[in-house]
Amino acid sequence: MTRVIGFDPGLAIVGYGVLEYDSKGKKVIDYGVIRTPKEESVPVRLALIYKATMELFEKFKPEEVAIEELFFNTNITTGINVAQARGVVLLAAIHYCGRLYEYTPLQVKQAMTGYGRAEKKQIQEMVRVFLQLSSVPKPDDAADALAVALTHIQTSKLSNAFLIG
Amino acid sequence: MTRVIGFDPGLAIVGYGVLEYDSKGKKVIDYGVIRTPKEESVPVRLALIYKATMELFEKFKPEEVAIEELFFNTNITTGINVAQARGVVLLAAIHYCGRLYEYTPLQVKQAMTGYGRAEKKQIQEMVRVFLQLSSVPKPDDAADALAVALTHIQTSKLSNAFLIG
Repeated sequence: MTRVIGFDPGLAIVGYGVLEYDSKGKKVIDYGVIRTPKEESVPVRLALIYKATMELFEKFKPEEVAIEELFFNTNITTGINVAQARGVVLLAAIHYCGRLYEYTPLQVKQAMTGYGRAEKKQIQEMVRVFLQLSSVPKPDDAADALAVALTHIQTSKLSNAFLIG
Repeated sequence: MTRVIGFDPGLAIVGYGVLEYDSKGKKVIDYGVIRTPKEESVPVRLALIYKATMELFEKFKPEEVAIEELFFNTNITTGINVAQARGVVLLAAIHYCGRLYEYTPLQVKQAMTGYGRAEKKQIQEMVRVFLQLSSVPKPDDAADALAVALTHIQTSKLSNAFLIG
């Protein structure tokens, strides 16, 4: 089986989700969040995110890393901090293995629901369904990270199908 | 003398400027830019920026690091990439020494020209004047990085004056 870790980056909270998959199916290994204290400066919080991300790589030893591309929301300050945090997660992934896959929000929506304008709640519900869980994973950031990992698996399958076909 | 390195971060080009200063004056040690090839992916370019930034720290061994805070321009995609690159430079600074000082664009403008709405060209001309150079340092990103380092020196002086007074 191949192991993938998905990330939903942010400065205050980084969601992650670890899945294993092969041609027969997929299973959840772990999911959760990295939190950084808001009393700390932005650079210190970025260093905490880098360290915790590297620790996740060491702990779970994923072969692949999946991360969502950013789209810009209306809160400019939040946007800058999310992008700075995302930069640090990308760096950690390159330092760890370099097998990094990026997906746009549209790709995640379409992979999870078949619909490009799906709401966040619909995507999270589909995470529950695809992973056969009794409830939606919490917090939301962890569910979002699992959605990115699932998008990666679905996209890989499609690529394989294409190669075989 | 105290050695400070200033940065003007971006994904394609990161400006840097190294100055030494004490109560009697200041002098230029070096300035220049880190460039990343646009054929490479964003994560690879971030890793190149991290590596080159760490090499600058090792080479010049600055005691202090100064970096400008971001303001958002109209180009959203550029903004995301600049913020991701800035996150990586902040991380490198924390990994290197942690003596990191951030200045807003307004602080840089006021420190360099006494005027909050100064144009970039005016700031670059003041870099030339303050450092007694025969021409404005090139490329612009290096001049901008020197402006941040100069803002740091001016602000430190003010802080000292305040402590003494």
